[in-house]
Amino acid sequence: MLTITRLDIDDAGKLIAGARAKAQEIGVPMCIAVTDESGNLIAFERMDGGKITSINLAIDKSFTATGIQKGTDALGEANQPGMAAHGISSTLGGRMVTVAGGLPVSFDGQVVGGIGVSSGSPAQDLEVAQAGVSALCEVELGRV
Amino acid sequence: MLTITRLDIDDAGKLIAGARAKAQEIGVPMCIAVTDESGNLIAFERMDGGKITSINLAIDKSFTATGIQKGTDALGEANQPGMAAHGISSTLGGRMVTVAGGLPVSFDGQVVGGIGVSSGSPAQDLEVAQAGVSALCEVELGRV
Amino acid sequence: MLTITRLDIDDAGKLIAGARAKAQEIGVPMCIAVTDESGNLIAFERMDGGKITSINLAIDKSFTATGIQKGTDALGEANQPGMAAHGISSTLGGRMVTVAGGLPVSFDGQVVGGIGVSSGSPAQDLEVAQAGVSALCEVELGRV
Amino acid sequence: MLTITRLDIDDAGKLIAGARAKAQEIGVPMCIAVTDESGNLIAFERMDGGKITSINLAIDKSFTATGIQKGTDALGEANQPGMAAHGISSTLGGRMVTVAGGLPVSFDGQVVGGIGVSSGSPAQDLEVAQAGVSALCEVELGRV
Repeated sequence: MLTITRLDIDDAGKLIAGARAKAQEIGVPMCIAVTDESGNLIAFERMDGGKITSINLAIDKSFTATGIQKGTDALGEANQPGMAAHGISSTLGGRMVTVAGGLPVSFDGQVVGGIGVSSGSPAQDLEVAQAGVSALCEVELGRV
Repeated sequence: MLTITRLDIDDAGKLIAGARAKAQEIGVPMCIAVTDESGNLIAFERMDGGKITSINLAIDKSFTATGIQKGTDALGEANQPGMAAHGISSTLGGRMVTVAGGLPVSFDGQVVGGIGVSSGSPAQDLEVAQAGVSALCEVELGRV
Repeated sequence: MLTITRLDIDDAGKLIAGARAKAQEIGVPMCIAVTDESGNLIAFERMDGGKITSINLAIDKSFTATGIQKGTDALGEANQPGMAAHGISSTLGGRMVTVAGGLPVSFDGQVVGGIGVSSGSPAQDLEVAQAGVSALCEVELGRV
Repeated sequence: MLTITRLDIDDAGKLIAGARAKAQEIGVPMCIAVTDESGNLIAFERMDGGKITSINLAIDKSFTATGIQKGTDALGEANQPGMAAHGISSTLGGRMVTVAGGLPVSFDGQVVGGIGVSSGSPAQDLEVAQAGVSALCEVELGRV
């Protein structure tokens, strides 16, 4: 048997609250999703004004970052023309997102879940996701 | 042009809080989803212990109830063999749920969104969804 | 944070070996899948002669049993006409399987994964799945 | 009538064992899939620590390599901007994978199946897939 550490619903609430606060600060209503370490959704919030196309984008960004144990922005670089993972964005029925805004959440060096943000520019989505991770970790971004 | 009345994120929070309180009271951790009047997800929460197969079931129950403007339990009756809507459960790629636990949310006689609950028995899911609606409406179930 | 117990790859191998032995004993080549407690595939084997339509059926039976924390045969009863969960077989894009042959695997009272078997009759699939669970648990079936 | 030569479950076991040994040697837990010459899954193993986003990636890499009768890395080159197959990565619902790590398995000049590996870098995935093929063939990579 394996012993796994996973975000609980309170952790998810802190991630979302931290992301929401940053989204309000920059004035961009966001869709914010939190998945557990297995990629299954724990919590989701679409702020008033968040984009409908961003609902599943946020969920899938969180799923992707949790799975690859890196930010989706890193996968975006690897997906560029000429790069070895070019074309990976179409895999898994398109759930593999290569646009910034998804981050893994780590605890004691293990990925325990992820957060995904969408509705702004990729840079804004990433900034808001980082604010969520920071709110939980209070110390560092927890990126692998 | 149409003017639409729709649940906002605060309303969604009240619906989820009411459902969560009932779920805690009956001791069944639930997946709880809230959609707007267009069937798009506003908020979701998987209580610690909520079932992974219930994540999309809760979302789809809320989507279904919002769309049909009735509880999913009513659709369940219409889906029984011999009934006119028998087989409707397979439509929309299986998103049309015919199991109790999804309810529309009404305001001034208009459907403004929905709530979907899953992880317990159909009766428990419905009870928890009703508690969510009651918490928002404070007066009645708001079922169409 | 939550602490989760999960099947490891060695556990999965024992489940499959136990199921395979029973399949050989009854002379029915089977597809056998093992998922973790989050419904994600750990291991799969299609015995020579296993049916191609049973590949995803076995995987989805294991996913379903893991998620609902019951055998898929129990869901099959609840899915019968007149029952409260009639129509649930079409949910989750059809991944919710209501045919016998999927069982959760429990350890210390917690669901730690699942096993799904397909290619024989539902009764044979269930018998083979039970043999897998017994091989791991050596004591009881571990059904919730 | 056609007579088809196809990997059996023992061959699949050798492919997976060879790949697993290499994965352990380089210290990267992998998802490893083996498909038959028709692209249908024979066997799958997610080593402890293999990535959840790599489960279907490994299966789809094996499916792709079996189907195109070339390594997925070759398709990756053909998928680059300016190349004739650019955009092929989105076909088949995204199952056509253009990232290294999938290889066909040949016997007597015929493709008899495939192997797909995922969780590391594309180069690591390919190295591990090649080790699987080598373990079965004992002589050469069997690439078409």
